[in-house]
Amino acid sequence: MTENRSINLAVIAGDGIGPEVVAQAERVLNHVADLENITLTSTPYSLGAEHWLATGETLTQETKDQLATHDAILFGAVGADPRSATVPSGLIEREILLNLRFSFDHYINLRPSKLFPGAVSPLSNPGDIDFVVVREGTEGPYAGNGGLLRAGTPAEIATEVSLNTAYGIERLVRYAFELATCREKKKLTLIHKTNVLVNAGQLYSRIFNEVAAEYPQVTTDYLHIDAATIFFTTEPSRFDVIVTDNLFGDILTDQAGAITGGIGYAACGNINASGTFPSMFEPVHGSAPDIAGQGIANPTATVLAAAMLLRHLGFEGAAARVERAVEADLAANPGAQRSTEEVGSAIIAAL
Amino acid sequence: MTENRSINLAVIAGDGIGPEVVAQAERVLNHVADLENITLTSTPYSLGAEHWLATGETLTQETKDQLATHDAILFGAVGADPRSATVPSGLIEREILLNLRFSFDHYINLRPSKLFPGAVSPLSNPGDIDFVVVREGTEGPYAGNGGLLRAGTPAEIATEVSLNTAYGIERLVRYAFELATCREKKKLTLIHKTNVLVNAGQLYSRIFNEVAAEYPQVTTDYLHIDAATIFFTTEPSRFDVIVTDNLFGDILTDQAGAITGGIGYAACGNINASGTFPSMFEPVHGSAPDIAGQGIANPTATVLAAAMLLRHLGFEGAAARVERAVEADLAANPGAQRSTEEVGSAIIAAL
Ligand SMILES: CC(C)[C@H](C(=O)O)[C@@H](O)C(=O)O
Ligand SMILES: CC(C)[C@H](C(=O)O)[C@@H](O)C(=O)O
Repeated sequence: MTENRSINLAVIAGDGIGPEVVAQAERVLNHVADLENITLTSTPYSLGAEHWLATGETLTQETKDQLATHDAILFGAVGADPRSATVPSGLIEREILLNLRFSFDHYINLRPSKLFPGAVSPLSNPGDIDFVVVREGTEGPYAGNGGLLRAGTPAEIATEVSLNTAYGIERLVRYAFELATCREKKKLTLIHKTNVLVNAGQLYSRIFNEVAAEYPQVTTDYLHIDAATIFFTTEPSRFDVIVTDNLFGDILTDQAGAITGGIGYAACGNINASGTFPSMFEPVHGSAPDIAGQGIANPTATVLAAAMLLRHLGFEGAAARVERAVEADLAANPGAQRSTEEVGSAIIAAL
Repeated sequence: MTENRSINLAVIAGDGIGPEVVAQAERVLNHVADLENITLTSTPYSLGAEHWLATGETLTQETKDQLATHDAILFGAVGADPRSATVPSGLIEREILLNLRFSFDHYINLRPSKLFPGAVSPLSNPGDIDFVVVREGTEGPYAGNGGLLRAGTPAEIATEVSLNTAYGIERLVRYAFELATCREKKKLTLIHKTNVLVNAGQLYSRIFNEVAAEYPQVTTDYLHIDAATIFFTTEPSRFDVIVTDNLFGDILTDQAGAITGGIGYAACGNINASGTFPSMFEPVHGSAPDIAGQGIANPTATVLAAAMLLRHLGFEGAAARVERAVEADLAANPGAQRSTEEVGSAIIAAL
């Protein structure tokens, strides 16, 4: 991909602050593409709660087929304004975001956490936070497997089935070990709840230990999810790479966002590492209807998602350039209240 | 129960630091019983990893039958030293702790979180943390329902089935609303992941909303588990009473322990609120084999568990007395490094 130096991008700006933050990330992408001689073409796709309200469609097979022709997807945020009771809770997230993750086999949900210079952690002694969570993206409790019996009655039963496969866990764990070998600390922590979720826990542990034998240079350890939330509070600097299941990864990465100064800095790659479908990059935050339309949302997480996108497509130089610009901007403007556009412009100026 | 003013207590000290912290809690219980004219008899039960290594037994039906004759159970901690590879991981926790919770129908897992004066939170602006988590204790992902297919092969599949019943959720939610009405803020937050775990989430939401209609004096809201971990970091003082499922409660209460200065202060009541079996009170921390035998474990959480036990049995005066003594001790000795026995003696002196 680095050879032809072109990117055929799909952009799903979405709802709420999605379009605002995506606009700045696109400005940054266009600038860095110019600087790095990358031909960038982008196609907007109108999806989200607003689109559903207007058309009754969440995500059609036709749109998925079109999205599949792109090199990568930049995603803002989807989700209804909770004040609008017309959109069923969770529908948009499931039928768009989760649908894309599952349809495009985004089995690696990659979420770096870093306490940037200038960012303010709510912890009094955060230390040097710099870890990556490798979250499973296509199975576990997210499989959508469960149901209701005697719905609506006092005898109702609801089940949720977590599905975990050796196939899914092995490709996840291998990716995490490879990532750990590329990092300075070379440490990988498995997080699960093996003492209670014994079946899934046993499968995770078995594969983790088997693959670990192939990576003697990587130090490994294990933590229960409950204990992990303690260490995220008391000693987050102990982590390097974390590998975990879909639900635990969801929980941990929001906590990780909080300890690094807010999910305004947290980016996410929904990655199909085998390249059969385009990968998708998004901020971890949601559509934040409460501050939408005011031009005050922080676009940093989306810009960092764009950097992950560049790296994924092989444009390491451009990715590093964007990340350095973000770090320079954060260091120069610690805690500053700025408009969405001001932040975008400052990052572009620092490129 | 307040009428006959007697307590027939069962004590399971367990492993590691369990016996050390329980010894101090028993000293405190004996003193407060004297002061409050309560006749306290206690019977020790030898259970845990050490007992299993010696006898091959975790928890027999006979022992359960004996335990069932007591008014309440004071529990230290069970769990093997991870350095001893002979004890299968999680076996002791499941076959003793979880077995008791399920056999004695401890459907309310009650976990107060308070930032005591003198305790040091790792958050720079913790605010006034004072909330109670009402965690479900007998179903959800803890039901032990799941299995392996093609175990040990590359085609292995592992399932975990979360079982949720209207029966179990309604008694939980009612307890939480009752508790909220007794508190100053009268606020109840449901925490779940309704946008992904749609079946269990829908059942929780339905029952929560139905019961809420009977408690107009209680303010309610809802948070996804991932968002909750953010607010636990950025604004924990917003919470009053939280009601949540078994696994989310497990995760949140460890994080709650961390933000209030360490799980050395976190107590837990495993409560059978219908009184058909004895309830069980324990510190949230585990057996901490790394510091066992040194006499340095903090017994405060176990003493607070003993206070919960007194309150549960109707001895409100004695419970409040113990809690005031703990608060006085913490305020008088902020951050002091003291032995287990010194802390016990200081609390007794403050009674
Ligand atoms: C919106 C929701 C379905 C999603 C998830 O649970 O994965 C979000 O919380 C995230 O972490 O990307
Ligand atoms: C030891 C373990 C089984 C237990 C749980 O998961 O409930 C513990 O973490 C707790 O919170 O009491």
